[in-house]
Amino acid sequence: MDHFSPVDFSNVDVTGGFWAQKQALIRDVTIFAVRDRFADTGRFQAFECGWTEGSDLPRPHYFWDSDIAKWLESAAYLLQKAPNDALQQQVEQVIDLIEAHQSPDGYFNIFHTVVEPENRFRVRDHHELYCLGHLIEAAVAYYNATGRDRLIQILDRYIDLVIRVFCVEHSAGFETPGHEEIELALFKLYRLRGERKYLKLAMFFLNERGKKNENDIGWCNERYNQSHLPVRQQHTAEGHSVRACYLYSAMADAAKETGDRELFEACRDLFDDIVTKKMYITGGIGSSHHGEAFTVAYDLPNDTAYAETCASIALAMFADRMKEIDLDAKYADTVERALYNGVLAGLSLDGKAFFYENPLEINLADHTRHTSVRDGDRLPITQRLEVFGCSCCPPNVTRWYASLGNSVCSVGENTVCVHQFLPCRVQLPDGAVLTMETNYPHDGKVRLYLDGAKGQRLLVRVPGWCKNAAFSVPVRINRGYAELTADSEHFTLDIDFPMQPVFYHANPAVRADAGKCALMRGPIVYCLEGIDNDGALFDLRVDTAGAATLRFDAQMGANVITLPAEKSCAAASPLYFCDDVPREKTTTAFIPYYAFANRGEADMAVWFRTLGA
Amino acid sequence: MDHFSPVDFSNVDVTGGFWAQKQALIRDVTIFAVRDRFADTGRFQAFECGWTEGSDLPRPHYFWDSDIAKWLESAAYLLQKAPNDALQQQVEQVIDLIEAHQSPDGYFNIFHTVVEPENRFRVRDHHELYCLGHLIEAAVAYYNATGRDRLIQILDRYIDLVIRVFCVEHSAGFETPGHEEIELALFKLYRLRGERKYLKLAMFFLNERGKKNENDIGWCNERYNQSHLPVRQQHTAEGHSVRACYLYSAMADAAKETGDRELFEACRDLFDDIVTKKMYITGGIGSSHHGEAFTVAYDLPNDTAYAETCASIALAMFADRMKEIDLDAKYADTVERALYNGVLAGLSLDGKAFFYENPLEINLADHTRHTSVRDGDRLPITQRLEVFGCSCCPPNVTRWYASLGNSVCSVGENTVCVHQFLPCRVQLPDGAVLTMETNYPHDGKVRLYLDGAKGQRLLVRVPGWCKNAAFSVPVRINRGYAELTADSEHFTLDIDFPMQPVFYHANPAVRADAGKCALMRGPIVYCLEGIDNDGALFDLRVDTAGAATLRFDAQMGANVITLPAEKSCAAASPLYFCDDVPREKTTTAFIPYYAFANRGEADMAVWFRTLGA
Repeated sequence: MDHFSPVDFSNVDVTGGFWAQKQALIRDVTIFAVRDRFADTGRFQAFECGWTEGSDLPRPHYFWDSDIAKWLESAAYLLQKAPNDALQQQVEQVIDLIEAHQSPDGYFNIFHTVVEPENRFRVRDHHELYCLGHLIEAAVAYYNATGRDRLIQILDRYIDLVIRVFCVEHSAGFETPGHEEIELALFKLYRLRGERKYLKLAMFFLNERGKKNENDIGWCNERYNQSHLPVRQQHTAEGHSVRACYLYSAMADAAKETGDRELFEACRDLFDDIVTKKMYITGGIGSSHHGEAFTVAYDLPNDTAYAETCASIALAMFADRMKEIDLDAKYADTVERALYNGVLAGLSLDGKAFFYENPLEINLADHTRHTSVRDGDRLPITQRLEVFGCSCCPPNVTRWYASLGNSVCSVGENTVCVHQFLPCRVQLPDGAVLTMETNYPHDGKVRLYLDGAKGQRLLVRVPGWCKNAAFSVPVRINRGYAELTADSEHFTLDIDFPMQPVFYHANPAVRADAGKCALMRGPIVYCLEGIDNDGALFDLRVDTAGAATLRFDAQMGANVITLPAEKSCAAASPLYFCDDVPREKTTTAFIPYYAFANRGEADMAVWFRTLGA
Repeated sequence: MDHFSPVDFSNVDVTGGFWAQKQALIRDVTIFAVRDRFADTGRFQAFECGWTEGSDLPRPHYFWDSDIAKWLESAAYLLQKAPNDALQQQVEQVIDLIEAHQSPDGYFNIFHTVVEPENRFRVRDHHELYCLGHLIEAAVAYYNATGRDRLIQILDRYIDLVIRVFCVEHSAGFETPGHEEIELALFKLYRLRGERKYLKLAMFFLNERGKKNENDIGWCNERYNQSHLPVRQQHTAEGHSVRACYLYSAMADAAKETGDRELFEACRDLFDDIVTKKMYITGGIGSSHHGEAFTVAYDLPNDTAYAETCASIALAMFADRMKEIDLDAKYADTVERALYNGVLAGLSLDGKAFFYENPLEINLADHTRHTSVRDGDRLPITQRLEVFGCSCCPPNVTRWYASLGNSVCSVGENTVCVHQFLPCRVQLPDGAVLTMETNYPHDGKVRLYLDGAKGQRLLVRVPGWCKNAAFSVPVRINRGYAELTADSEHFTLDIDFPMQPVFYHANPAVRADAGKCALMRGPIVYCLEGIDNDGALFDLRVDTAGAATLRFDAQMGANVITLPAEKSCAAASPLYFCDDVPREKTTTAFIPYYAFANRGEADMAVWFRTLGA
């Protein structure tokens, strides 16, 4: 096991480029769009705990605490970078309400305070510990941003109650959380405060999980919430994909904190199972809406892809943790894949609307195929919404992109690792400073300055998509990282990751992609959208040997790629025929996958047919 | 409009070959298998009308009368060809029960006699008139077979009641049947008896249909049962596909009987809409299980294909009627397509089990993809069953194949038409005899003798699949029929329809088949089944230029075709990669589509990828 530590985003200033724009969007638009929709839907007011049966207030849902908690966490990350009194005041108001409505014994949960007080800690799937986990993450973020620990103090009393109920009295209706989250939150709090009770509680929940069948949900089995086996015996990714990756993240935290080799190996197997068998090319995971779950290996349908935005974030969280204990580029590659594709597609270009599900193919005809029945097949929606009944994804997007700097660098003994590429200035723990200049992801040239670190080892990820990286000094490549030594106090490194359009095949076992290709350029997955391509996308055959043309599109923030293609001639043909299909030449335009569905409803396809394939 | 009349199957002796074997199977096995399962499930006993709430008897369903009626009709067709006292006695026993339980006013329906007597003629979708229609068809068949008209007399009283309630008093809860069938049955009875009241009632139901919204089913709209427009304004096939084609069959009957040009043109458009936009290559129709319905043009998914066996039969019924008023080979081509494929797949090779749905692709992995939830996607079942809760298909198969001779020939003024090819002896109305010798569908050589018809015009269908038919005398091809004159009293004609494996494309608008081909030889659609082909069927790329090998398989009753192909090498590959896929040569075996799922569960595919396509 390796042992690296991430450089906190507070020490990473994004100085321009693609991500500075996205972070500005989060800071200026998205955080308020999410806040306003949460206000509209009664989520903020719910913290006043005023709901009673028959009242005019919306009935709180048992995951509403977590929606606001993730918003608080996002606000804290923004506050850390730029003070904003109004935002801080709003956070404090929520904390006031939590304090005011915390039970004398420390308990706090809106739903179980006002709707089902009799069911406190009785129903495993009611998300109480999940909500507490998100509140803990918010509390840690807010403390880091402001030095104010009031929320931590409140939650510390709640955690003491949880320890008493679950670990001492065993008086709850279940033993481990139905929706994992508190485990990884407790590791964060433990790292901040150093109190072993947090570590012990996290390890308790991890160690008890899957020891006995405590599932209380009729429509699923124990795999749904990863309770089918003790965690150290889990080697394939199963069940609800967000829950799974939150659990796996906590397992990686535990492996790092305790050096538990068995846990580490389980994590490694789980990660490999996902990225070699169960992940869309976009970094989407959880291919089915049934249980929002992983299914079987290579089962990756495109048009019905669930690929929840939160699940891609959770995968990136897991991968980011894994790279600290097992330095291999596959982890940061996966973070990058999610960052630019599966997660980014979740956010509209104007920063106000979200996808919960992220299909890789849209055929509008499928949405109106049923002409005589009122309800037909269940399909992902085709346009982003501003808020959902279950609105977990929007504040997950805000918190992740606001704290994106966490993924950029990590440090180990006499070593600096660079995982992601963006213009930034990184204050390293020992006083050294790493500066990156790059136009990434638009081109692959990166200039790296390392000041005050003479003699340190530098490990720079070579992205998995890049086959011919060039470095200005000799390097040795090991597990996807270029290794070199900074030989001066003002060390400069020039890197070129040449970017061109590249066509990908899927493993022959992926039925949905058989006979098709996907297009990437650098880390960005492209797609065809009906708006740019007359006629049926499935009829197009792209000439992968043809000359690609790039045109920068400012609205999309990336290059549009055009390629020659063929399509069937418009002439009517019978339904079935044995002559060759008459075809004509055409040109087809690809846009970044993350930018689809920003110009109205249209067909869309990531995987497409090619000439002669 | 043309005006031909079919030669009744009673005058067509199938003298050997493919269909003689299938008819023997129906006569010796299937009719009794269906009977026994109907007995097991209480359907025969239900005619004793002994059910009461709380009794041990199975609660009758409102379509059970029709299940037994179709079995009676099938039995009658068999009795017409070969007396069988036991079978005849069983038919008489059912008629005894109908007579015993007919209401004094003529009404008869098991469900509404014992379960919901208060709802007689109140609920449009309760199939009372549908059941009556099938009883009428049985009565006509039984009269033709035995000369016994007792059932006709019983039903005549019932029909008088229907006329009073619907046409005179207008006292029913609806105006036209929710499930069409009685209309075409009334035309049959009218042709037999010549009583205009039958014709008038049929025309009443046709003419009233769609005049106002009388739909009473919440989950669908008026298209579901073709009530969205007056029938003469219907030009696209909509809704429940069996109901639709039963209606269209009656519309064709009406056009023939009345010469109504508007009805004829509607029928022609409806037929063309189906066969050029909404029909599987197997002759399956109704692509969705939602409403068992037609969807939109070119929407023909293979793995979720509903393609009910009854719907293919209904399409053939419609096509068989159309060819009599609009002689074009497209109609008998469609009958043939259903005969050898979409309908025949509905029956197991041992004659005992049935498909209700007939998918064109099976991926067993899809049936177990949901590992953490109890219920996943709805998919067609993969093995035939002996009986269904809604068991309409089994007796529909028996009655259609037992009376298959109806589709072979028709006659017009000084003209004999030959539509289907099988070894048979046909007694023509004017005393002439037509004899066919052929090994069809195993090869395309047909010898035709026409005795006693010197000077008559002979019209012989050239199957749509055949591009280079050869005739021993000069012929003129018109609308797919070869036209010639029998120039002697003992006229002999030799025909060759050369048969080789032919690869079909689907219209480029059919998304499900994009980039794929299907294989036919003569009228038989082939498929790949996992049992004969190691590994994933979707990974195979068939060499359509390669040499095909034929091997006759006695159990399947047809040739198995082997072709060279390529598949991916077994070596593990990453989930996404940009190098070429290493491939290896293999050989792949195709079996007739109708024979799939007779050797255990397996993957199956009608549409497959090809080399260089």
